[in-house]
Amino acid sequence: MNVTIRGRIRARTQHFRTVAFDAKRNAVLLIEQRLLPHEFKIVATRDFRETAAAIRDMVVRGAGAIGATAAYGLAQGALAFRGSDAKKFSGHVRNVYKVLKDARPTAVDPVNTMNDVCAAMRQGTTVEQKQSLALAAAEEFANEDVRHCEEIGRHGAKLIRNGMRVLTHCNAGWLAFVDIGTATAPMYAAQAAGKKFHVFCDETRPRSQGATLTAWELAQQKISHQIIADNAAGHLMQRGEIDLVIVGSDRVLGRTGEVTNKIGTYTKAVLAARHKIPFYAAIPLSTIDWNLRRGFDIPIEERSKSEVLGAWGTLHGTQRRTYVRVANPSSGARNPGFDVTSPELITGIITPAGIFKPRDLWKYRGRLGYGD
Amino acid sequence: MNVTIRGRIRARTQHFRTVAFDAKRNAVLLIEQRLLPHEFKIVATRDFRETAAAIRDMVVRGAGAIGATAAYGLAQGALAFRGSDAKKFSGHVRNVYKVLKDARPTAVDPVNTMNDVCAAMRQGTTVEQKQSLALAAAEEFANEDVRHCEEIGRHGAKLIRNGMRVLTHCNAGWLAFVDIGTATAPMYAAQAAGKKFHVFCDETRPRSQGATLTAWELAQQKISHQIIADNAAGHLMQRGEIDLVIVGSDRVLGRTGEVTNKIGTYTKAVLAARHKIPFYAAIPLSTIDWNLRRGFDIPIEERSKSEVLGAWGTLHGTQRRTYVRVANPSSGARNPGFDVTSPELITGIITPAGIFKPRDLWKYRGRLGYGD
Repeated sequence: MNVTIRGRIRARTQHFRTVAFDAKRNAVLLIEQRLLPHEFKIVATRDFRETAAAIRDMVVRGAGAIGATAAYGLAQGALAFRGSDAKKFSGHVRNVYKVLKDARPTAVDPVNTMNDVCAAMRQGTTVEQKQSLALAAAEEFANEDVRHCEEIGRHGAKLIRNGMRVLTHCNAGWLAFVDIGTATAPMYAAQAAGKKFHVFCDETRPRSQGATLTAWELAQQKISHQIIADNAAGHLMQRGEIDLVIVGSDRVLGRTGEVTNKIGTYTKAVLAARHKIPFYAAIPLSTIDWNLRRGFDIPIEERSKSEVLGAWGTLHGTQRRTYVRVANPSSGARNPGFDVTSPELITGIITPAGIFKPRDLWKYRGRLGYGD
Repeated sequence: MNVTIRGRIRARTQHFRTVAFDAKRNAVLLIEQRLLPHEFKIVATRDFRETAAAIRDMVVRGAGAIGATAAYGLAQGALAFRGSDAKKFSGHVRNVYKVLKDARPTAVDPVNTMNDVCAAMRQGTTVEQKQSLALAAAEEFANEDVRHCEEIGRHGAKLIRNGMRVLTHCNAGWLAFVDIGTATAPMYAAQAAGKKFHVFCDETRPRSQGATLTAWELAQQKISHQIIADNAAGHLMQRGEIDLVIVGSDRVLGRTGEVTNKIGTYTKAVLAARHKIPFYAAIPLSTIDWNLRRGFDIPIEERSKSEVLGAWGTLHGTQRRTYVRVANPSSGARNPGFDVTSPELITGIITPAGIFKPRDLWKYRGRLGYGD
């Protein structure tokens, strides 16, 4: 999406993808997300090991974004091979695959996209053919990720009417994908259609992705928005100041319609249901889990206590991120990272294939790519 | 309550009130709450102007605590008068009253308690008599505040059973009163009765009073507790990990049973109702507003944006509180400070006179001090 860079003389606006590839330098280009919102910087990884490190160290995060990064990283590793020995090449690629996979062992997207790249390579005979097929497959995945987000935007934009106040939680924006994002896609499409609306971003404690990443994105896209404490949404709903909620998801159960997302999502869904405010989750098809049968069985990661006991921010007059301890030093914390929202609280799931009631996903599984 | 002070050689535990009076030095003794939880310090204000400054600058906060501070401040001012001219004395007291009242112009407790002190002084004839009546009235108010909190504890402790997990929001603990507190009173009484239970403290963004003050109090009283992000309570309720919710209140409407409290309270009440978890507000009688007829008419203070956009904490290895900016620098915020919870979400109101259903307050207004 568009980013406005403030230079010495004047600001200029430029289009960036979260993940891109520079074929001349055989480098993956990534927005350094750990510096946001205080600094905007593109880093170029010069080989697949650096690309793996960027995934591991959270330079890049978000399902679609790390999927594309791993696909490009595998192509980058393949392209770096010198010689024409197909057997040696194959061993080299296996090693690249392993290094990239191990960078984020619990994520499913890098494995899926790298398998696609491997399948494409098998269509070639010579090393050179395989190399160019790998890059083409990675580019295809990245472009498809963008197209899917565009489709989510096209379907979801219809939900946003002029003058609406939209609540979102955490970051399911373009920084989490190759471009455009999921929860934000309807907003960007509605804006492109000339609609005026306002977005409330939950700050999303304890990691504050709403206050940092989503607010930064919306500011870049010049969408009217304000950050609120996670405690405030209920009050705003009660006073009639929120008309629509759109969030992303880490995993939607295709069999039950349950939605896993950042901790606090369930609370907002309960509040929205009480106030009869439509509540949507926007997802690419790869987020649907067709196997699991019970949301209760989704493992909820318990994250570091330090996230709850303090906060990361910048000191006055600096751009360096610093951790401060907020809580009483002798107290501990619980820190579940995600929660599960039951389908009766969700108005619809916005997908690239259209908007579905959560309990209808299984019925329309053919259209939603199950069994592909 | 008891505070454990870590000295050079060993820790010692000592009993403190949040607000007390040192008659020898004619000084009000206050726990310096702005330093908590990182440092424990008692400050002594040497004259009524210093006492007013302590109220204004939030050295002391919380309804009961500032009520007692203002009452002692008025007595302190009266006692500082030299001479026997009753007319001059009366002018002096009027001035002291005004300075203390102006220290927190929107609060109702200082006015109520100072009016009681003035009424007591009118029973005396000489300046000397009036001076000692003022101090006795201030002491009486402080002792009554403690007795009321003890009564709240006695009634509320019955709700806490062995093994329970209790959620609380913000700080309605002994730091907000002369001693014991309201939301915490049932916990301290249950502990004294030998019951074992666990408390989850909502961190209570944006000002984090749960993570700082309530967690510090519970740690001092050696009550098992953990801090959670405000986003996490819904998930814990869903998984059956919360059995009871007790909060304080800034204003309860005697005619409707609506409860005003720190932003986020309404959200927790909605979640508790969904999960059929009992939800109580604990209050002294002075918190009941018998006049207002609609919760919607309660003015909700919009506080500084900076509270939402950043956090106060200590840097590693220091005890100095520092502000860090967390949010995207070009984004704004909304920051409503309080919300209103409707009576159907509240199981009961714990008062010094017993536990009442919120809609029964008006029926029992005689027992609850209305018209006194």
